[in-house]
Amino acid sequence: MSAQPELDFTLSCPIPIAQYPQVVLAHGGGGRLMHNLISQMFAPTFDNPLLAGQHDGAVFNVNGARMAFTTDSYVVRPLFFPGGNIGEMAVYGTVNDLAMCGARPLFLSLGLILEEGLPMETLWRVVQSIQRAAEAAHVQIVTGDTKVVDQGKGDGVYINTAGVGIVEHKRAIGPTQVQPGDQIILSGDIGRHGIAIMAMREGLEFESTITSDAAPLAEPVLQLLDAGIDIHCLRDCTRGGVASTLVEIATTSGLEAHIYENRLPVHEDVRGACEILGLDPLYVANEGRFVAFVRADDAPRALDILREHPLGEEAVILGEVTTGYPRLVTMTSLIGANRIIDMISGEQLPRIC
Amino acid sequence: MSAQPELDFTLSCPIPIAQYPQVVLAHGGGGRLMHNLISQMFAPTFDNPLLAGQHDGAVFNVNGARMAFTTDSYVVRPLFFPGGNIGEMAVYGTVNDLAMCGARPLFLSLGLILEEGLPMETLWRVVQSIQRAAEAAHVQIVTGDTKVVDQGKGDGVYINTAGVGIVEHKRAIGPTQVQPGDQIILSGDIGRHGIAIMAMREGLEFESTITSDAAPLAEPVLQLLDAGIDIHCLRDCTRGGVASTLVEIATTSGLEAHIYENRLPVHEDVRGACEILGLDPLYVANEGRFVAFVRADDAPRALDILREHPLGEEAVILGEVTTGYPRLVTMTSLIGANRIIDMISGEQLPRIC
Repeated sequence: MSAQPELDFTLSCPIPIAQYPQVVLAHGGGGRLMHNLISQMFAPTFDNPLLAGQHDGAVFNVNGARMAFTTDSYVVRPLFFPGGNIGEMAVYGTVNDLAMCGARPLFLSLGLILEEGLPMETLWRVVQSIQRAAEAAHVQIVTGDTKVVDQGKGDGVYINTAGVGIVEHKRAIGPTQVQPGDQIILSGDIGRHGIAIMAMREGLEFESTITSDAAPLAEPVLQLLDAGIDIHCLRDCTRGGVASTLVEIATTSGLEAHIYENRLPVHEDVRGACEILGLDPLYVANEGRFVAFVRADDAPRALDILREHPLGEEAVILGEVTTGYPRLVTMTSLIGANRIIDMISGEQLPRIC
Repeated sequence: MSAQPELDFTLSCPIPIAQYPQVVLAHGGGGRLMHNLISQMFAPTFDNPLLAGQHDGAVFNVNGARMAFTTDSYVVRPLFFPGGNIGEMAVYGTVNDLAMCGARPLFLSLGLILEEGLPMETLWRVVQSIQRAAEAAHVQIVTGDTKVVDQGKGDGVYINTAGVGIVEHKRAIGPTQVQPGDQIILSGDIGRHGIAIMAMREGLEFESTITSDAAPLAEPVLQLLDAGIDIHCLRDCTRGGVASTLVEIATTSGLEAHIYENRLPVHEDVRGACEILGLDPLYVANEGRFVAFVRADDAPRALDILREHPLGEEAVILGEVTTGYPRLVTMTSLIGANRIIDMISGEQLPRIC
């Protein structure tokens, strides 16, 4: 390995090194640069049928059991914020990725990367939050690992969780399953997680504290599946917000996702904070919201079921899938104009999750 | 969460905060402090039957399929060293933890935590190594996640992998299965990984370069299982070396593990380097060695099978299990004296894996 000349790697690197000689924050931001890193470097290198699904997790059969498997690392700062903390996020985030595969989450692994000097009391608070969140999400932490890095080589706690779930239905769920005519359901109001974090970082105070929407989403999703709703795709709207989520799905499906700005549920306090911070709520991270692409005639019933659940009370039909502008997300704005919604190319909110 | 007074957490913390107010490097070193963190904080908090096995991974049934699930994070520095690199380790290490559950490794997840400013070419080298290692170990990278942290909040690349494997036999393998009379087989020479890393960090040059033993161990383990060898426990001898591995198993099994110093395979160059560095090879990390606790009358055959495999050519019967000194590891030294082998309490080799 070390004997090979560096030039070889520079020449073969699928990311143009002249343009991106180094990794920048935006490579982890959920926008265009991260998308390029995944689609140009990771996907072709690790190429296999399971990865090719470009979903939140992999679904495979083992001895007749249909399983889902996913992972996420969590580097959010600060560690504690209104409505949640890194431990809770690490459980809910991976549970949600399993749910987006249509799986019932069962088991989680827990990898801790601790920075030397982390107060033991902080670790204890995080560990307790992890267990409380696991109980709330009906999963068990069954295996783990702890590493400690030198002071100045971490930031308190980084957490990785991986999750295993069981898929109890025959449905194929993923961006390649999306069909023209599908209705796009959004499960609730958007922007709260990102704004809760940013307000805390910037020391902003609003009349009422904006709290993260962090929540485990398996229950409402499984209710939709149990009701036989013809779900084609599910995706939680984390890094990069609803906009990036929809762009990813439109790109992979080869179809147009068209949404309506006047249907977007944004709470007044979040809207105000977004204006102060110069953010578009459509791009702000959520930790307890998802979109479901559903066959049109199932959409009203799906909406009813979701709205019965505490985590779906504000669910809306945000738009629909068409063949008009393949691979694009378009939006009818408040004033009735149509515009293209793109991924952000830079980094809007670093280390939001 | 944030409203609760800090005092509550300090008082309830199972690690005495007066003694350990902060996390130190040794909490991740594989010795006594890490053991305490796991047994006093993590195990009681996450308490569940699967975790209680205290093995390298969890084994569970899903719809009739017997699966193994494990995780490890990798924070080794430097990223590239003689005989391996962090990407290769991240694959082999998790593959090996699955093998130690007696499982056939199938699928890996990949969580990257990149530091802003990491040369893109370095990332590319690591990613290629990961794929090469996955091919060598017959596993697929099926799901992943990328996070980027600010410069000075990481160290180039941290990697987490989790792994899923299938258990194709009925055997129960783990420290609680160890029986008096079991023979302890060590699969090869020890100390090479730790010494390769330390020599590079300290800028030491030896006549020949000592290379890491990093290797995927599933094949020789599955050969033992396929041959029907009555294996009671398997464990790879990573952080904390053979000594810490044996102490963990002796503690959990409630039995004595007795070994013989004159049977320890240590290459001359490693022995010399250990003397210069003031290290005991018994405590130095390996990345391609394991111990197998095997029913006595199966031991000779197991040894024969192992020695046929390139990764087991130097396998030895290192000792046996007795009821003499419960929960202890003892060693007959070169001069014939008996001594107790304990875990190290401090940190011998930080960030060795």
